[in-house]
Amino acid sequence: MDFKNRLKKYQDLVNNELERYFLEGNVPEKVLNESMRYSLLAGGKRLRPILMIATYKLFDDNYMKCMPYAIALEMVHNFSLIHDDLPGIDNDDFRHGKQTNHKKYNEATAILAGDGLLNNAYLIISNDLKEEKNKDLLDLKLNIFGEFANAISRMIIGEYIDTELEGKQIDDFLLEYIHTNKTGALLKYPVRVGAILGGANEGELDSLTKYASNIGIAFQIKDDILNEEGDEKIVGKPVGNDREMQKCTYVSKYGIEGAKEKLYETIKDAKMCLKYFGERAEFLVEMADYIENRNK
Amino acid sequence: MDFKNRLKKYQDLVNNELERYFLEGNVPEKVLNESMRYSLLAGGKRLRPILMIATYKLFDDNYMKCMPYAIALEMVHNFSLIHDDLPGIDNDDFRHGKQTNHKKYNEATAILAGDGLLNNAYLIISNDLKEEKNKDLLDLKLNIFGEFANAISRMIIGEYIDTELEGKQIDDFLLEYIHTNKTGALLKYPVRVGAILGGANEGELDSLTKYASNIGIAFQIKDDILNEEGDEKIVGKPVGNDREMQKCTYVSKYGIEGAKEKLYETIKDAKMCLKYFGERAEFLVEMADYIENRNK
Repeated sequence: MDFKNRLKKYQDLVNNELERYFLEGNVPEKVLNESMRYSLLAGGKRLRPILMIATYKLFDDNYMKCMPYAIALEMVHNFSLIHDDLPGIDNDDFRHGKQTNHKKYNEATAILAGDGLLNNAYLIISNDLKEEKNKDLLDLKLNIFGEFANAISRMIIGEYIDTELEGKQIDDFLLEYIHTNKTGALLKYPVRVGAILGGANEGELDSLTKYASNIGIAFQIKDDILNEEGDEKIVGKPVGNDREMQKCTYVSKYGIEGAKEKLYETIKDAKMCLKYFGERAEFLVEMADYIENRNK
Repeated sequence: MDFKNRLKKYQDLVNNELERYFLEGNVPEKVLNESMRYSLLAGGKRLRPILMIATYKLFDDNYMKCMPYAIALEMVHNFSLIHDDLPGIDNDDFRHGKQTNHKKYNEATAILAGDGLLNNAYLIISNDLKEEKNKDLLDLKLNIFGEFANAISRMIIGEYIDTELEGKQIDDFLLEYIHTNKTGALLKYPVRVGAILGGANEGELDSLTKYASNIGIAFQIKDDILNEEGDEKIVGKPVGNDREMQKCTYVSKYGIEGAKEKLYETIKDAKMCLKYFGERAEFLVEMADYIENRNK
């Protein structure tokens, strides 16, 4: 199966799991349930859960074992998008080519739908922990829970600094710091969970963590490039607003060509970290290429 | 020591623990840290953590064992206040006699400070779970973590329904349903945690849960009464706005005298549930009276 088909298969799998969660009555209030599902199923790429599942599959085929963590992560990612889009933060009307949550519903609903997604992620984790009877696996999962909470804290801090620094000049160090937190933390986490739950040894975990760190930076560089020269209809959200709002981005910092060069180098570094795994890591290599070449 | 002094002692204890958490560098971004502390230390009554500690003390003196859960709960309570006060929801300018978070800082900060408090609560719980070496106690704590996530989900749903129903007539059942979720869930939870961690037997846990359910309803009735006839300067937030916004409250439903009667009965029921504990439960009995008679 080629990369596109495998990606699609994974996306369908994740979408079904997300849909199932809401159909099972976990959010019993009709409109709130609907608004959470609306954003969650609006057509995201599912990169984070797919990175987790694909990393897990380097070690073991039974990837359903990491599914609760994959689903919880995708919920948190969507919570962050809903809140970032709010009038009080980025004030965006479109996302994935559809109205943002507060446009489709209203601001109160969007605030509470975001809160609800964040909290439901932890509800899923608590259910999985309660059911874990294997003490060694429980210990691993408790560490994963800690990494999750830490990654989200870092994401919130990154988002905060990014918001506060609009229109200000910042140095390389701070630009990297923002994105290591804002975007990077939640992209590194799934690869680590896949590796840890799959039973990676220390060296393997270390290589995969480095792969994920590079992927995180590359993802943000590409986001900045798409905001500068992407096609709004394909990207599905407004482009050009980084420049308008004088946001400090990889493009404003290094120029469009400089940013592309940095993207290329970062993806190359990411793929280097997978050398040890050989052909088993083919999909993760292709994910890196996909992040470099995506047009949305 | 009389009730007022004991309450003050508990409040100081909780405030110190909250302050310590932020001084320890758990939120490394200066202004976000400050805004979270601002709301958290703006002068709340600390009813929830104190209910937990006082319940725990029915069974065991070493109440520091439940402190992480008490602190986490107070953070979540404050997250909910910050988000409820936002222009998109209640649009309140004052809380505890001070500017609300988005007034003192800005909307983006208030959204992210709320998100951060919710998430830090889970970070605290994950740290406590990781350190728990006693398998039986860990199992209890995993259940408590689950109850926490469920209580917060219920609070968010209650808040959502409350927001959406402004200006609409609702029946007794729905009024009770809203407040059992919106206010009740986070008031029941601490009493249950205190009892469970303290080692209550099934009957004791059951009695204390009923006490807490009554306390939760009484708290909301009193809130509605204070909004109708409280002194704005003492209450510390605007009064009269429930009537203005045509909110359905215990006062709009039963009239001011009917609401007071219902408050009296509910507090009486709450205290009845403590009979079994005799003098040991003196402080919890006084807490019930305090909730009935508070003027803020």
